[in-house]
Amino acid sequence: MLSSSPPSPPSPPSPPRRNVLWIMCDQLRADYLSCYGASPVSTPTIDAIAKRGTQFTRAYVNSPVCGPSRMSMYTGKSMRAHGVHWNDHPLSVAHQTLGDYLHPHGIRNALIGKTHVIPDKQGMKRLQIAPGSALGQHLLKGGFEAYEHYDGLYPSPYHRGTAYQTYLEGRGYKGDNLWHEVANSGRDAAGNILDGWLLKNNDKPAVVDEGDSETAWTTNRALSFLDEVAASGQPFVCHLSYIKPHWPYMAPEPYFSEFRDVAIPRAVRDEKERQTVHPLLAAYQQQPAAVSFADEACRRAVIPSYCAMIKQIDDHLARVMAKLEATGLAASTMVVFCADHGDYLGDHWMGEKDFYHEQAARIPLLVALPRTGDSSDDSARGNTGHDGSSRAAGGGRAGQHCDRLVSGFDLLPTMLEWLGVDPERPTIEGCSLMPLLHGTQEATTPGDAPSGAAASGATWVGGGAGGGAICDRDFIVSEYDHSMLLVRKRLEAYHRRNNLPLSPLAHCRSYMLFDGRYKYIASRGYRPILFDLQEDPDELRDFAADRPSVLRRMAEGLHDWALTDHNQTTFTHRQIAEYDELGDGFFIGYWDEAQIADVRAELSTGDRPHR
Amino acid sequence: MLSSSPPSPPSPPSPPRRNVLWIMCDQLRADYLSCYGASPVSTPTIDAIAKRGTQFTRAYVNSPVCGPSRMSMYTGKSMRAHGVHWNDHPLSVAHQTLGDYLHPHGIRNALIGKTHVIPDKQGMKRLQIAPGSALGQHLLKGGFEAYEHYDGLYPSPYHRGTAYQTYLEGRGYKGDNLWHEVANSGRDAAGNILDGWLLKNNDKPAVVDEGDSETAWTTNRALSFLDEVAASGQPFVCHLSYIKPHWPYMAPEPYFSEFRDVAIPRAVRDEKERQTVHPLLAAYQQQPAAVSFADEACRRAVIPSYCAMIKQIDDHLARVMAKLEATGLAASTMVVFCADHGDYLGDHWMGEKDFYHEQAARIPLLVALPRTGDSSDDSARGNTGHDGSSRAAGGGRAGQHCDRLVSGFDLLPTMLEWLGVDPERPTIEGCSLMPLLHGTQEATTPGDAPSGAAASGATWVGGGAGGGAICDRDFIVSEYDHSMLLVRKRLEAYHRRNNLPLSPLAHCRSYMLFDGRYKYIASRGYRPILFDLQEDPDELRDFAADRPSVLRRMAEGLHDWALTDHNQTTFTHRQIAEYDELGDGFFIGYWDEAQIADVRAELSTGDRPHR
Repeated sequence: MLSSSPPSPPSPPSPPRRNVLWIMCDQLRADYLSCYGASPVSTPTIDAIAKRGTQFTRAYVNSPVCGPSRMSMYTGKSMRAHGVHWNDHPLSVAHQTLGDYLHPHGIRNALIGKTHVIPDKQGMKRLQIAPGSALGQHLLKGGFEAYEHYDGLYPSPYHRGTAYQTYLEGRGYKGDNLWHEVANSGRDAAGNILDGWLLKNNDKPAVVDEGDSETAWTTNRALSFLDEVAASGQPFVCHLSYIKPHWPYMAPEPYFSEFRDVAIPRAVRDEKERQTVHPLLAAYQQQPAAVSFADEACRRAVIPSYCAMIKQIDDHLARVMAKLEATGLAASTMVVFCADHGDYLGDHWMGEKDFYHEQAARIPLLVALPRTGDSSDDSARGNTGHDGSSRAAGGGRAGQHCDRLVSGFDLLPTMLEWLGVDPERPTIEGCSLMPLLHGTQEATTPGDAPSGAAASGATWVGGGAGGGAICDRDFIVSEYDHSMLLVRKRLEAYHRRNNLPLSPLAHCRSYMLFDGRYKYIASRGYRPILFDLQEDPDELRDFAADRPSVLRRMAEGLHDWALTDHNQTTFTHRQIAEYDELGDGFFIGYWDEAQIADVRAELSTGDRPHR
Repeated sequence: MLSSSPPSPPSPPSPPRRNVLWIMCDQLRADYLSCYGASPVSTPTIDAIAKRGTQFTRAYVNSPVCGPSRMSMYTGKSMRAHGVHWNDHPLSVAHQTLGDYLHPHGIRNALIGKTHVIPDKQGMKRLQIAPGSALGQHLLKGGFEAYEHYDGLYPSPYHRGTAYQTYLEGRGYKGDNLWHEVANSGRDAAGNILDGWLLKNNDKPAVVDEGDSETAWTTNRALSFLDEVAASGQPFVCHLSYIKPHWPYMAPEPYFSEFRDVAIPRAVRDEKERQTVHPLLAAYQQQPAAVSFADEACRRAVIPSYCAMIKQIDDHLARVMAKLEATGLAASTMVVFCADHGDYLGDHWMGEKDFYHEQAARIPLLVALPRTGDSSDDSARGNTGHDGSSRAAGGGRAGQHCDRLVSGFDLLPTMLEWLGVDPERPTIEGCSLMPLLHGTQEATTPGDAPSGAAASGATWVGGGAGGGAICDRDFIVSEYDHSMLLVRKRLEAYHRRNNLPLSPLAHCRSYMLFDGRYKYIASRGYRPILFDLQEDPDELRDFAADRPSVLRRMAEGLHDWALTDHNQTTFTHRQIAEYDELGDGFFIGYWDEAQIADVRAELSTGDRPHR
């Protein structure tokens, strides 16, 4: 359990010492990495992580927006379970996070960068947890040790006193909000600030020197941390969580200029999509970012800077990878690379994220188990999987693509299994990906036709299964609460215009079910939307009217998923399976001793399987 | 918020001082009270509560078993929200209970009797809450002040050190487990214990003297409490929670003999029900209590003692009501009378509770607002409602029957509204019944045909609505987790015999939707069951095959209910409605200042309703 003082190194260190470097980018689309295909930007460092491990091609977020998506990753739970429905919503103190699972094992859970955790101060007050205590700090930081907590969005007056502001001041920059004025804005010829929030200004370079940019500074802090743990020998998770390439889309030189003339990918959109009469889609297409990105001028202003920021991250990650090698940590460290969601960038007549097309809901996900050492060559030693991928010394396959359906909440159980942590009372819905990394589960989905309406794998809900379970799910689910968006207000206006009853706030939800081929999107009060990624990989057409049997199957799947408990957290499946109704002296409803003996005999002969 | 010391009386006391006496019986069927019809036992004291207030004729539990049902009452949440799926399952420290809402207002929340709260010791450990602290005690006792906590089921060795054991020892009884040997067993001629757990022995009187029985002792403790608060003047909720007429079905003399020859109601059951091929129903009919009660000999042994225990409670409640009058507390105290679920007693070939027929899922519920004083006669003063019911001085109608659909979780918000408590961050799904008590909402359902698939009223989920909202629901939901029952093991055996895949533990659930006419019962993997209480009030026939459109409507209702969030507890609907997306400096996706101005203008002109 949590101690009242910071956790001390375990003695003796458990062999083999294992660590995780968990890199996250914010708002990074998978197809802007060269390992994922025709990216406008080449990302050799990130590609190298893929080559060393498993590249997931069907990884999706539990909710296509920062806070809810991240909370799923940090808790291992779906949005409806952790209850954080949007960015400003606190994470209840009730929820165990990664740090809760790691602390009892003396594993540091260090944050460098962003979490988007909003602390549950009311819950802490109710439970009399002092913010200044070790437990209070743990909860305030979402279970992370705030080695360098930096959430990275600081409109005035939020910037005051941040470490990055202090750093920039130390570097000689002058201003009240250097995050805004220097790091995330440009300047005109007269020296006036060109506000980086406005997309029209994203065709200017950021004022800040590249070496003082958020990405560079965050990387510097990570290198310091890695030096520290290399010296101390304490096992760790290092959550290196970059705010970029999230807006404001401002890139520093020389990256800015390098990409100004990049070949901008054609927008994935069709005029017919704009003719939709679906009220929800229409409302999304009226979002400010959607309206902005509908204009090619906006894409031309933003996308080069988006590419530049990605390239910059890739270059800085090379420093991180070199540090792993130089410190020897590479031999014991699982490297995870992911994003918290994507970015429409004008595709499908949308901007931002918040919906379920591939551009927003799919994320890059790479997981590489450690190599033995700098000079090892697994392939040369004959350590090659049957599919030609080589097997890394940590047990994982190298260079493997995996098309299994994966969700953000799978990362937590994956890390726990790698670290050898078997939680006492897990409340995790995700499944460990370790069998996929090891190749003990096939990385390729056996067939396209799912076997029916089985629930999305909820191996650990209520606990019990422990690590190593193979996750075989028929679909994955993503969810979104649009009550905080303009979308809701536009829908309310639409309802009023058409004399329709207003939806209560509790109905401002949408759900995506994806089975690997069909993507089903449902929102109460509107007809469902159906994409067929086999016939129409670009998701330009709604097949809902043409596939009634698919709609029925997906609706059943959603129904089953919704009925699955998401809040039974205090009694595990293992406890249920081990419960003996004749063991506690409560003989309820038995007429006589003979009836008790009969049931006892029945129970002792029958096997009592559970799953 | 909770203070680290016990709450002290508020100064000055808020006028008018208001209290609640919340009487609960365990396993009491509504139709065993004379105010609910042809009861085999006359209950004049309880009937008098009904005459003074509102008698709810369609009150149902959120789950037909003690722990989950009570946790719904104590939290105001559905089972799937509070996560307590069965009797042995702890209530997470995360959940606010009645006591959390009352403490900040200096209102005592005193328990006299049973709660079935299983404390979340692991959660407390995680959050470093010392069991001995005031907060620890608050959480260990489910938010109650344990004036006399007595859960009332003490098979050896659980009895040791209980207050009731100590009391009985002081009264001269000898034995290791006096709860068992004296209060809940009989004796044969040779003085051997006749185990009260076994139904065959329920045709003997309990050994204990009536005046020392659990019901008498619990009542004594309540009288002491009422004397104490009458003297102190501190407002209170007094949860007087009798363990009886719950099994062991042992009644003391003279009540035992008074009812030995009572006219036992004909069992509500039909041979056709036993010919069911529904696997779930068949498994329930194989439960030990079902097998026992199928024999009339069992009903003849048990039901007279069940009646005797009810009569005994009614007599002791007369002492409580007299104390309310004598202390003057009657003028300021709302009286609530309810049960946590019913008892099949052999009806429908079932025993115990755990399923959804009226005998198990429906409860008696009476709520009486205070009269002005002993001598007042509201009717004589012309204070009469338009339906002929008289209006009590507290504002409530007297002698009113209400057929609105009511759930156990409605009690908490009702009490809060009566007490004038407006929670800071409510996480309550139930609706206050105050508008029904006052007659500001019609107590009679307008029509039989529900208006569609609106969710069961979730006014306070995520908070925001505050007190006084009128709850207009199309149906109520009850749920049950049969994974802990023999039912599951018998179903597993059935599946194996028939080569069917075993259901995972997470699917061992059933759900009841009741719209006032149709009772729909669904469990994943089996066909639904449908009762039509209009055509078949005794629920002897399954209409599922004959009412496809009703099945569809109910399935949709269940689907909608399941999709409704049950865990969004940290951000209220009020906060969502008040959120201003242009107020915090995050200008996301805007091309230029003009676009921001346009949206600002749009928002300032449109009204922004929410509900």
